[in-house]
Amino acid sequence: MEIFPKRIALLGSTGSIGQQTLDVVRCFPEQFHIVALAARGNVELLAEQVREFQPSFIACFADAPGVAKAARAAIPGVILGTDGLLAAATHPEVDIVVAATSGLVGLEPTLAAIRAGKTIALANKETLVMAGHIVMELARREGVSIYPVDSEHSALWQCLRGEQTAEIKRLIITASGGPFRTAALDQIRSVTVEQALAHPTWRMGPKITIDSATLMNKGLEVIEAHWLFGIPYERIEVVVQPQSIIHSMVEFVDGSIKMQASLPSMHLPILHAISYPARLPTADTGLVRDLSWPQVAQIDFETLDIDRFPCFRLALEAARRGGTYPAVLVGADEEAVALFLDEKIGLLDIANLIEAVLERHQVIEQPDVKTILEASAWARKTARVWYEESNVARHH
Amino acid sequence: MEIFPKRIALLGSTGSIGQQTLDVVRCFPEQFHIVALAARGNVELLAEQVREFQPSFIACFADAPGVAKAARAAIPGVILGTDGLLAAATHPEVDIVVAATSGLVGLEPTLAAIRAGKTIALANKETLVMAGHIVMELARREGVSIYPVDSEHSALWQCLRGEQTAEIKRLIITASGGPFRTAALDQIRSVTVEQALAHPTWRMGPKITIDSATLMNKGLEVIEAHWLFGIPYERIEVVVQPQSIIHSMVEFVDGSIKMQASLPSMHLPILHAISYPARLPTADTGLVRDLSWPQVAQIDFETLDIDRFPCFRLALEAARRGGTYPAVLVGADEEAVALFLDEKIGLLDIANLIEAVLERHQVIEQPDVKTILEASAWARKTARVWYEESNVARHH
Repeated sequence: MEIFPKRIALLGSTGSIGQQTLDVVRCFPEQFHIVALAARGNVELLAEQVREFQPSFIACFADAPGVAKAARAAIPGVILGTDGLLAAATHPEVDIVVAATSGLVGLEPTLAAIRAGKTIALANKETLVMAGHIVMELARREGVSIYPVDSEHSALWQCLRGEQTAEIKRLIITASGGPFRTAALDQIRSVTVEQALAHPTWRMGPKITIDSATLMNKGLEVIEAHWLFGIPYERIEVVVQPQSIIHSMVEFVDGSIKMQASLPSMHLPILHAISYPARLPTADTGLVRDLSWPQVAQIDFETLDIDRFPCFRLALEAARRGGTYPAVLVGADEEAVALFLDEKIGLLDIANLIEAVLERHQVIEQPDVKTILEASAWARKTARVWYEESNVARHH
Repeated sequence: MEIFPKRIALLGSTGSIGQQTLDVVRCFPEQFHIVALAARGNVELLAEQVREFQPSFIACFADAPGVAKAARAAIPGVILGTDGLLAAATHPEVDIVVAATSGLVGLEPTLAAIRAGKTIALANKETLVMAGHIVMELARREGVSIYPVDSEHSALWQCLRGEQTAEIKRLIITASGGPFRTAALDQIRSVTVEQALAHPTWRMGPKITIDSATLMNKGLEVIEAHWLFGIPYERIEVVVQPQSIIHSMVEFVDGSIKMQASLPSMHLPILHAISYPARLPTADTGLVRDLSWPQVAQIDFETLDIDRFPCFRLALEAARRGGTYPAVLVGADEEAVALFLDEKIGLLDIANLIEAVLERHQVIEQPDVKTILEASAWARKTARVWYEESNVARHH
């Protein structure tokens, strides 16, 4: 069976993962066709992408009226609002939807794409963190595959090729440890935004970079792995691998461990998600640098010091409690990171804020999509209230 | 489909791999039944194994008359000579033949087992090194699977589960580097038998331990990998991994690398070969120790210094030249290692001897089994002649 060309809808085309997805597509014009592009507010870049990739369908889903006007002027035929995003996700000519929007906005188009029978290449963590029970159950019912784009989950997935889920003993997710891997708690307390944005091994958008510095990101990844592979939390571990060369590992019941490795690159997991089950040769593309010896002389492992990274603990607690807690975690974290990037709160305040919001939350079990989005919106609002209150308190 | 119980013929049951195979079988009495046992000369141990595992068929293939007499006395119904070995390999009640004899003797029973449609768990390197073209072609024709037992090849095989051979970029075989990994050439020249037998990470029989010290073993493994996975020599690399935790790796065309890891253990690759496609839980067996972090704090990689390990270079040269050269390599090496273990020659003389024998050889292309065995016998004889000559020379 011919698996190529694959016809792609790219949601979030102007973000970091979106742009890197187009880098990959650019290298394999025979294999990948961009049918639909959807972006939030970067109209200029979206217009450029439209000129290059000539998609049949373009959506711009920013809610700011200025953006909408600019989009209409720059991109003839653009569809505005979340209607456009949903139409891109369910476009009849599309085989695979790359869900690379950030935050809450990815959930509904992903569900719509699953209902439309599209294969999902999932780069949006929040979707599974908040609504894993809904997404995975719907995918199972519709017979739709969800392929991970995150490097850690791509590693797990690759290690699981040809293996049985029932024979997994544990998933071992690696963490670079972020910029404050060796920093004392007192140092972490006073870090600047600039320091927190300087990730040692990965170049990413600002939200996820801060989440990596607090290790919230690693907590979200554990939750994502739980849903993707159906493994209980007590059999998912995190180990620090500072060079970010081993992207994750699977231990099987017989004691054998498989690891997936490369130099840090998002192009590789993106390519794997959209080319699967094939692997395409990257030698002449410049997409993936060779991992060769003795250039890589050493791979280190360290235990994760949870005491210095309370966001990691909070994520796991929210996940274990379930219900609307993970949605509250995501909402509170979005607000907290925004406050940190605005230099309104310190890095450790992110965890304090999230913990305070989780404590005030009245959980709803087995929430539907509407309840999840409401819980998340409540969390953002409550986070702002917490900030105002604590801010007032500080100024007295 | 029920894959268990698997009915096993174990050739070479009293050797290191043979005994460890029985350790595995002992842990999974529901899954594995020993139907046939064959051993060379350790009658006492064979008789003990017969009492424990109650096989339907027992062979003792030592050619020494004393051994035959002792075997007949200790084991009622034992079949003697190579006839017994061949009958064990082709026993009608057997599903899988574990070929764990050492040296040349494994070739003919392995071919007979393939012709009889048995799955092969191959622990005998010489079989593929000398006759890879015959063995793999016969297996292909008979539709028979050959599963590796060597830890490196098991690692490659595990990394290749669910993958396409055509998408392999290179195989990267790891080497512990043996006891003289960091030794200078002058030190290697004067090592004792005892020093050479003290392998830092693996406990094995004496022949393979010396082959590991000279890195001849790693050369043979490259040849074995070439035949097992059909990958040309220029795409098989060796990298030193002193802790013997990463057992080998596969790089795919997209740049992704998969590695298989465990603490050094032969039980695990043996189990994988006989339980495939299943993985059996070892948690309560004591067979495989947990690889856990931060217990494993670091994995190092080094380049292999070919200048200090001429046997490695000779093996690769013999492999590239093909024909009867690999059989000559194996024969000359068997004799050379025996001379070293007898303290007749030094460790570096092993390479000198093999090189001298290879130089005197008139190659025959596409040899059949008879030609291969003759070439190997010629090599052993020529090796002894070389020793006598050089010995005479030394004493003048």
